[in-house]
Order: sequence, then C-alpha cells, then structure tokens
Amino acid sequence: MSISVSVNQHGLNVVKEVINRADELAVKVEENRDGTTLIDMGVAAKGGFLAGKYLTDICLGGLGHTELSTIDIGGLMLPSIIVAADYPSVSLLGSQFAGWQIKVGEGENQYFAMGSGPARALPLKPKEIYQDIDYKDSFDAAVIVLETDVKPTEAATQFIAQKCGVDTKNLYVAFAPTSSVAGSTQISGRIVETGLHKLYKSGFDPKKVRTGIGEAPIAPIHPKSIKAMGRTNDMILYAGRVYFEVEAEDDDELKKIVQATPSSASRDYGKPFYDLFKAADFDFYKIDEHLFAPAVVTVNNLKTGRITTAGKVNEKILLQSIGYVE
Amino acid sequence: MSISVSVNQHGLNVVKEVINRADELAVKVEENRDGTTLIDMGVAAKGGFLAGKYLTDICLGGLGHTELSTIDIGGLMLPSIIVAADYPSVSLLGSQFAGWQIKVGEGENQYFAMGSGPARALPLKPKEIYQDIDYKDSFDAAVIVLETDVKPTEAATQFIAQKCGVDTKNLYVAFAPTSSVAGSTQISGRIVETGLHKLYKSGFDPKKVRTGIGEAPIAPIHPKSIKAMGRTNDMILYAGRVYFEVEAEDDDELKKIVQATPSSASRDYGKPFYDLFKAADFDFYKIDEHLFAPAVVTVNNLKTGRITTAGKVNEKILLQSIGYVE
Amino acid sequence: MSISVSVNQHGLNVVKEVINRADELAVKVEENRDGTTLIDMGVAAKGGFLAGKYLTDICLGGLGHTELSTIDIGGLMLPSIIVAADYPSVSLLGSQFAGWQIKVGEGENQYFAMGSGPARALPLKPKEIYQDIDYKDSFDAAVIVLETDVKPTEAATQFIAQKCGVDTKNLYVAFAPTSSVAGSTQISGRIVETGLHKLYKSGFDPKKVRTGIGEAPIAPIHPKSIKAMGRTNDMILYAGRVYFEVEAEDDDELKKIVQATPSSASRDYGKPFYDLFKAADFDFYKIDEHLFAPAVVTVNNLKTGRITTAGKVNEKILLQSIGYVE
Repeated sequence: MSISVSVNQHGLNVVKEVINRADELAVKVEENRDGTTLIDMGVAAKGGFLAGKYLTDICLGGLGHTELSTIDIGGLMLPSIIVAADYPSVSLLGSQFAGWQIKVGEGENQYFAMGSGPARALPLKPKEIYQDIDYKDSFDAAVIVLETDVKPTEAATQFIAQKCGVDTKNLYVAFAPTSSVAGSTQISGRIVETGLHKLYKSGFDPKKVRTGIGEAPIAPIHPKSIKAMGRTNDMILYAGRVYFEVEAEDDDELKKIVQATPSSASRDYGKPFYDLFKAADFDFYKIDEHLFAPAVVTVNNLKTGRITTAGKVNEKILLQSIGYVE
Repeated sequence: MSISVSVNQHGLNVVKEVINRADELAVKVEENRDGTTLIDMGVAAKGGFLAGKYLTDICLGGLGHTELSTIDIGGLMLPSIIVAADYPSVSLLGSQFAGWQIKVGEGENQYFAMGSGPARALPLKPKEIYQDIDYKDSFDAAVIVLETDVKPTEAATQFIAQKCGVDTKNLYVAFAPTSSVAGSTQISGRIVETGLHKLYKSGFDPKKVRTGIGEAPIAPIHPKSIKAMGRTNDMILYAGRVYFEVEAEDDDELKKIVQATPSSASRDYGKPFYDLFKAADFDFYKIDEHLFAPAVVTVNNLKTGRITTAGKVNEKILLQSIGYVE
Repeated sequence: MSISVSVNQHGLNVVKEVINRADELAVKVEENRDGTTLIDMGVAAKGGFLAGKYLTDICLGGLGHTELSTIDIGGLMLPSIIVAADYPSVSLLGSQFAGWQIKVGEGENQYFAMGSGPARALPLKPKEIYQDIDYKDSFDAAVIVLETDVKPTEAATQFIAQKCGVDTKNLYVAFAPTSSVAGSTQISGRIVETGLHKLYKSGFDPKKVRTGIGEAPIAPIHPKSIKAMGRTNDMILYAGRVYFEVEAEDDDELKKIVQATPSSASRDYGKPFYDLFKAADFDFYKIDEHLFAPAVVTVNNLKTGRITTAGKVNEKILLQSIGYVE
C-alpha cells in the first residue's frame, strides 16, 4: 500500500507559517525575479535555534514533530533537538535525506548545493529510494531545502522548478549555511533520518519502520564550513541517539542489522570527523560510508516486543570535536 | 467553589485539531452510521508518537500541556512524555482517569473497553469521584477515549451517547489498542493522573492539589495485549516521576500520605507487572491496588514551602519488564 | 544596524492568545475602569505552569521559544523551563529584564512592583541599556509584566500608560506574585536573560550575542514572598545553565569575561540566597551584584569556533535552598 500524503503540501504549510513569523524567526523572505520564494535562514539573515527547528520541520515535509531541548555531554550543557517521525520512510528518506545534488552552470558561475526536503519527491531524487519506499509525491508546488553559503541563483531555481514540474512562482527554497545556527540545528535534526538511512543501507526495509524518535546535540558553530561540517557530523556520529518501532519477522536477523547500524560499526569510527576527512585528503569517497550513522541505535520489534540496541555515546570524542578537550 | 470549565468543550477543541491534522498524525477519522465520529489512532490506523501526544491531550480534556521527549533508563534511551496539569482534580480525576467500563451487549456480541476522558464527566462515572472533586460537566457534545483492540460498535456508541445525554452526532470516540504506539504513549501520559489518584486514595483531598507535572518513559510495544499492559504499567510503576504543588494544613500528615503514595509502598512492588499478574492467575483483583502509582512522588506544600518525596526509579525492573535484561 | 522588530507588537500577540485561552490557563482577564486589560496569573487567579510559560513568552516580547520540562537535581525531579532567545539583546535586555521599578503614590496608597517586559522599550527604562543595545520600540499598545502580590491600581496603570505614551485602553498588564506557580516559572524563565545581563555587566557587548538557550529548575513555591524570592533566585544561581553563540574578536578576552560571569565568580557565592539576604539585614544593596548570574555559562565564539565555559551546578546548595537537605 503506497502512502498518499503529500510532503510538499504539508511542507508548504510549515513554509507559510515561517513566512508569517519571519520577523520572530529572524529570517528573510524575498521573491526572485522568476517568482521563486527564497527563505534565507542564515546567509544574510541571522536566523537562530527556532529558525533551525522550523527548517527541520520543512525538511521533514511537515510530517514530524520537533522540540528544542538541552543535553549534558560530559558535564557540558549543549542545545539539542528532539525529533519524532511517524511517517519514517516518507518523511525521512522521501523528504529529509540530502539526496539531490543541485549543480547548475559551469565554472565560476556554477551553483552547487546539497538539496533535501519535499521537492525531491517530485523528480524522485534518487529514484532507487523512492522505489524502495514505494512513494512519490504529486503536487503543484515544491519545497526544497539547500545547505549552502550562497543565495540560490535564478539559474538554480529555474532548474529546480523545471525538474519538479512546477512553476517558479510555486517554488519555495529555504536555505542556510552549515556554519549558521539554523544550519547546525537542522543537521542535528537529521538524527532519525541518519538512523533510518543506515538501517536501510544495512538491509532493513524502511517501509517496515513504524515510527522513530531521536535526540542529538546541536553543534557549536565553527566559521569554516569544512570544520562546521565536521562538528555537525560528530553530533550525530558520537552523541546522537535514535529509537525505532519496526516490524520484523526474525529477531536474530534484525539483531545483526542493528549491530551493523551505529557509527561504531564503521572501521573509521573513533576520531572526530574533521580529522578523518583531513587524513583522507578531504576526499569524501575515501571515508567509510558506514560511518554516517547515529552513535546509538535502539530498535523495538512490534511483532515480538524484542528490543535490540547497539552503539554508545562517546563524550570524549564529541568534546574533542568541538575543541573543548584535546 | 466548583470549577465551571468544560472538559468536553476543551477536549472537543483538541479533537477538531486532530481531525484537521488526521493525515499528519496517521489517524483515520470516519462517521458511524449513527453519526458518531470515530477517530482510530491505532487499530486500522498506524498512529504514532504524535497521535499519542494528542490522545493524551484529549484524555486531559484539553486542560493539560504535553511534550514528547527522551529519557535515559540505565543507559537505554527511551521515548518519554512530559505532562503538566494545571487543573489537576478536573483534568486528571474528572477526565483522564479510566473510570468508565463500557460493556454493551451479551456473549459474542459484547463490546468491552475501558473508557476515559471528558465524556465521563457527563454521566459522572464514577459518581463518588465527581462528588469528591466537586465537578460535573454540562455540554452538548461528548468526547471519550477507549483503550481497545476493536473499533467501537454502533451499539456501544449509542449506549455512550445515551448515558452522556448527547446526540450520537455529537459524540466523538478516539481509540487505540494498548499494543500501539499511540496507545502506549497515552498510557505513559497518565503519569500525573496515576499520582493524583493514589494521593487521593491515600487520603489527600484532590481539590487541594494546585498543579502537577511528571514524566514517564513510553513503553516499547509488545504485540500481546496482556504483555503490553504489563510494560505500559511498569513505565509508571518503576520509572514514572511526578511533582505536585498542594495546599496542606499539616506537613506531618502530608508526609505520611506521600510516603504511602509511590508504587514502592505496595506489598506487590518489586517485580514486573506481567509477572505479578501471572502469579495472580491473571486476576486483577488479586493484585494490591496500592501498586498502581508512580515510582517517585514529590509534593511541595504551598502553605509552608515544605518538600516531601518518596519512592525511587527502579531501572533494573524496568529493563527486565521490557526484556532488555533478565 | 538597529533592529526594527516591535517587542510590544509580538508581545501583544502572545497576550491575545492568553486571553483566548484564559480558561485553560486558569488566569483571570478583566478591564480596569480606565480600560487597561489586567491579566491576573496568580493573585486571585490560580494560574499554573502553563500560565508561567506564557508569562515568560510575554516577558520575552514574543521573541523567544519556551518549553516546560523536568530536571534531576541530586536525585530530586523538579519541573524546569527551557528558553531559547534568538534576539538576545532585544528580547532579554530590551524586554525581559526587570528594569522598571513602578512606584506610584505615597505612604499607604503607594503601589510598588518590579516591571519587566516589552513596555519598558517605549519609555526606555533604563535608558542606558537601550543605548547599549541600540533599540527602542514604537508601538501604539504597551505590554508590561509585574511581579507583585497586589492587583495594579488605576493610579499605577495610568502612570504606566502615560510613561509609555499609549492610551490606557491599549495597555495590557500581566501579573503574578513571586509566591505563585506562574510567578516561580517566569523567574526561572529568566535564565538566559540573567546570563546575558551578567555578560553585559562583565564588559561584553550584548549586540554581539547571536542567540542563547538555557534551562533552569522551577522553584517549589514558598508562601512567604521573601523566602520565595530566595528560592527562585537560587534556581538560577545554583542550577541554571545557559549557552550563547557570540561574535568576539579575541578569545582570550572573551575567556576572561566568561570566567567572570557565573554566580560562582561572586564573593557571596556559596549560600542560599535567603541566608545571604538575612545576613545582609535584608538590604539588597549589601549583596554583591555579581552574584546574580546563572550557575553555568558556556559561550561559543562564532568567529573562531572556540568554546569557553565557567561555573558549575551546585546541587547541595539548591537542595538546601528548598529545605530538602539541611
């Protein structure tokens, strides 16, 4: 049975609330000449934790619930975000997952950004995921989230609109840099998505996941994008915790999958992400893809009531990552 | 002074929000042939944590505040629910308490479910409680919550409507099984109610309770209702914590009452609920009624500023209850 | 660049929601003969945690985000409030800070209360702060919060309206005693404000603070105002934790400022506030002003990514403060 709920429709509801509360959220809303609505949450706008919470809600296609909170990491209180996702496959893999590389133009004029959010479910980026979750959206507006330091160009918005099959007047682009409060918040807001994506890559059918909830600290901002990327990844890899309710036929097989899921199952586990990245000569493809997962993954099997957990929070590496201890 | 606020009116406001957001909450709304609105949150519908949060809000007659969160139990992160209740006697005893056994028809056609929520305050189920809290509602619509594996029959909805003195067109029934995410969430959402009920049974006047707040983990689902019932009870008995602001004349007397309040004051304390239930040949009436209380009860006396606390979280039994340790 | 957002406009939006939900919040709304809207959250009204959450939102001029939660202090669960403020200088110093002593009339008829909230930003109370944050509001309605045991007199509301340059019909006064649930909640809701105010007094430019988030336990009520004041202060001084994202040129200078910021940097640190106050013959001006700060202050420098923290939670003194241990 495919799910008929529209992530773009519900995501647009969140976008409209953001537009209404733009002042309070310290975000800037403007229209491109082509009619695209641009929602700047951290490039020229200041944004903040609340903008980051809403940005997460947009990523989830309006099908999640988020709360700002605080968390203790080795005696240090950090901000945190709690995310509940009751349509896991659709809201996390079908929307929040950063699965659409936007690359428009050539050379100096090239616009590049990682795209996530509901819009992906129109052109099906990437197609394989949508086949596996048996979902596609059909809606006359598109909502996309870009992690970027640069306001999208018109070439980019026209490209996105065209791929989504919507008029640019019906395209909504929310964006924030990795090195911004809203950006940092929305990345930690991927805690449940990262867990589901890794479960999926470990061989579990994401359609069999009934619901998920998780919490991750929000990374202190670093002004350099590449270092900010290290910190934001580490929030999930070394301190993010996620819990799923799933339907599985075989607890032993599920246990094997769960044990392969947390970041600690990777050969690259054990150092701050930036250090790994540097050692890999900043070549993403040299880093073990199995690393990208929460620190702790707990799964309850709805069919048997059996709980399985793997991984643990690594406070030491997290504090190293943010330069709090050496 | 009796309180004039209507739990059915405020509960209906929550119901209307649920109906508007049915898609997002993964709940199913339909009308019986008699015009009753049925809100399925976990029988044929999938529901989820957010549906469970709203189901708790409905139970509270719209007079509480709930948040989804996470909690650490012996190193295991579980979902949790936080509940604040600023009309404790009315919203908890007068609405949320599961005080109305719905039993309609005979033999195979009998419909049975535990009823809770605002509707109870119309026929006053049970009358003694409403006398003790000096409250009754008067409203032309009724909102009831049923913990059940089976969609209510028309015989049941007609019976409920008739008892409440409302037209079936004005009856709203929200329901979910114990073995569902929304059901499990709403049971943990009874943390403050369970505490107030036990304080009341220990001899404290519930009208003297000004406000309450509490938190309990949400039980991992077990597919068998009876085992799910064990787990959901244990969340409150062994890990639920509640805090009240009360008006008491005598701190020594209050201290005695508080010491008699947590689950640990019961002779049956110390084993997972399912084990106790099994040892009692699954006869509810053989289990000490004093067991049904939060693990920890803390009370501050508004009149003197004195704090009294009793009980403690028992992580070991909670983890046994969910099969995480033996 | 001065900020153009209006704290009175956004604060009024919260006030209107409170008026709409007055029943649920157990607050009383009435009009003075001069047309002022009085929102009683704890004098004749009962109020509660939710009223306190909204009272905090009003204090913040509608430019913050608050959540009720729970916190563990030495094994005792207390209610807590989490506050995020994305317009720190404006919402905290320009609105929430209790910087306006309202003193109207003489002798027995004198009305006295500490004023906080958006209204201060119209007459600029005190002027120095508004110069330092480069902010003033301009709006035709005024919203003020009074910490008081007594309903404001008409002499007081006329005085406030006149100072704010608004018609009394456009004046909204929300009030609650220190010794009330809503009052206690809104004081703990000052955790981030107290941190920013101390940073500012320690020499840091508040306009350079991008965002802040914090959490503090909510004090159990004590019926005597002076003792309630002691407890509510101690929640922040000995258990409040705050985190800021700031822009600083020099990490070494920032470190010195941060180290001077938590309550433990004061010579008077180390005893419950009431004991200090009593030892000072209840003369506020004999207490070291540097004491008024959160227990823990953590700052991340957006410009360098460097984290600095100072202070620690002192569970023992907090539990002494509320009479839980001796």
